[in-house]
Amino acid sequence: MTFTTAFPVRFGDCDPAGIAYFPRLLALIDAAVEDWTAATLGADRRTLHLEQHLGLPAAKLETEFQSPARLGDRLDMSVGVERLGTSSLALVITGSINGQPCLVARLVLVLTDLSAMRPIPWPDTWRQELLPVAEQDSS
Amino acid sequence: MTFTTAFPVRFGDCDPAGIAYFPRLLALIDAAVEDWTAATLGADRRTLHLEQHLGLPAAKLETEFQSPARLGDRLDMSVGVERLGTSSLALVITGSINGQPCLVARLVLVLTDLSAMRPIPWPDTWRQELLPVAEQDSS
Amino acid sequence: MTFTTAFPVRFGDCDPAGIAYFPRLLALIDAAVEDWTAATLGADRRTLHLEQHLGLPAAKLETEFQSPARLGDRLDMSVGVERLGTSSLALVITGSINGQPCLVARLVLVLTDLSAMRPIPWPDTWRQELLPVAEQDSS
Amino acid sequence: MTFTTAFPVRFGDCDPAGIAYFPRLLALIDAAVEDWTAATLGADRRTLHLEQHLGLPAAKLETEFQSPARLGDRLDMSVGVERLGTSSLALVITGSINGQPCLVARLVLVLTDLSAMRPIPWPDTWRQELLPVAEQDSS
Repeated sequence: MTFTTAFPVRFGDCDPAGIAYFPRLLALIDAAVEDWTAATLGADRRTLHLEQHLGLPAAKLETEFQSPARLGDRLDMSVGVERLGTSSLALVITGSINGQPCLVARLVLVLTDLSAMRPIPWPDTWRQELLPVAEQDSS
Repeated sequence: MTFTTAFPVRFGDCDPAGIAYFPRLLALIDAAVEDWTAATLGADRRTLHLEQHLGLPAAKLETEFQSPARLGDRLDMSVGVERLGTSSLALVITGSINGQPCLVARLVLVLTDLSAMRPIPWPDTWRQELLPVAEQDSS
Repeated sequence: MTFTTAFPVRFGDCDPAGIAYFPRLLALIDAAVEDWTAATLGADRRTLHLEQHLGLPAAKLETEFQSPARLGDRLDMSVGVERLGTSSLALVITGSINGQPCLVARLVLVLTDLSAMRPIPWPDTWRQELLPVAEQDSS
Repeated sequence: MTFTTAFPVRFGDCDPAGIAYFPRLLALIDAAVEDWTAATLGADRRTLHLEQHLGLPAAKLETEFQSPARLGDRLDMSVGVERLGTSSLALVITGSINGQPCLVARLVLVLTDLSAMRPIPWPDTWRQELLPVAEQDSS
């Protein structure tokens, strides 16, 4: 089951060419991942960061910008799990506008102990939340 | 000859984990490319966009975040040409902190007529500026 | 009648102190105004900017940050008209979290012909949309 | 003696109208204050936040946007102390382009213990750095 969310492409997301500025599109991708994390892990980033001192910094990002997103567009995003490693998590995020593909991103995150700034293995409880998602996504 | 520039990692670039937020790192990568464009093409983005109605939207981006950039770090960036296509341009941007690799990005831009939102071939004058750079970079 | 909207305080809005970075709060204020404009004028920013070549640049801004907004908070915003001038429009935007005041801003915008970059008077049709709002707000 | 610094108005700072987006101008104001803090207090934000667990959140901001900043402009900024309170500090920041005024801001910051999120009085050593600046500025 793929998680979906949507964002308006706002004035503050757009550049002098009138299209979304790509670093702002990546902030919207991150916002989609933020919503997905809360929905899937049952722990939002406030809990992760401020209570558990865990983080999910990006290790790798590949993005194809397939067509420009324009001021006022509604950007539909989906987030799915591609692969779950010991500490890593590869997500695939797609964005579309009126059903037309706008972007696709592959984002690898690493579960990190923020005090030591070191990767830690996914706890079993979260692994159990993520694995079925990964299986369903790839099936 | 590789173009180099540097940016401080500012408070406004950092997230609650105290490290640079990845969409902000991509804005710094874009700033490095902005400086490179002006230096190499002899036309800054103001001229490109507002006078010539040309743009260089991102078509593809691959980034590896090798180590976190922290508040107060100085991020040294280099920009080099990897490949020059008919309308496209593949740049390689590396970032380091105190000589340690922080990030490496491959960014494919497409020279675009902003009125028609259509790719246009690189004009010969610019091609001649870019090709020696591409050759020197890959030699 | 006051227009209301709400935004989550996202990871990307927060600084290393774990609270919303004030320039990002101002981007959220601008997003609230963006939604208000579309609802009140019946013309969204895409229409305003790209079709009518009109803009509403900020002339003056006064903000009091009454209490910090934290990662994960829901920021409830209201937008009301304070005063309608020949070309200007003074809005009052308030933000609260769980009913507690977080910020209050007074933002003066100027209706501007973007080609000439010169103020223009509010057209009558829009003036008629804005005046009742201004009267109701101050009554 | 007034502290001065300068920033280019970048592509990523500009909106579809081709002028600087006001929340981005406020990020540049904050960057000027960041540089001023390091120069005046002898403690940069990394030291303040990560070692001393102190912050300088904004309590109040008044800004007049006197003329638009455009893509490619060089924004010259000055930062001066207006008033030093027990825990507060009122700064005046001005921005100009080619000698023409662009913006003026009055920003009130509060020295804050980030653990308790409570204001603390300025330590004497910093007070002695700030007072002569305040006196010189107002003389």
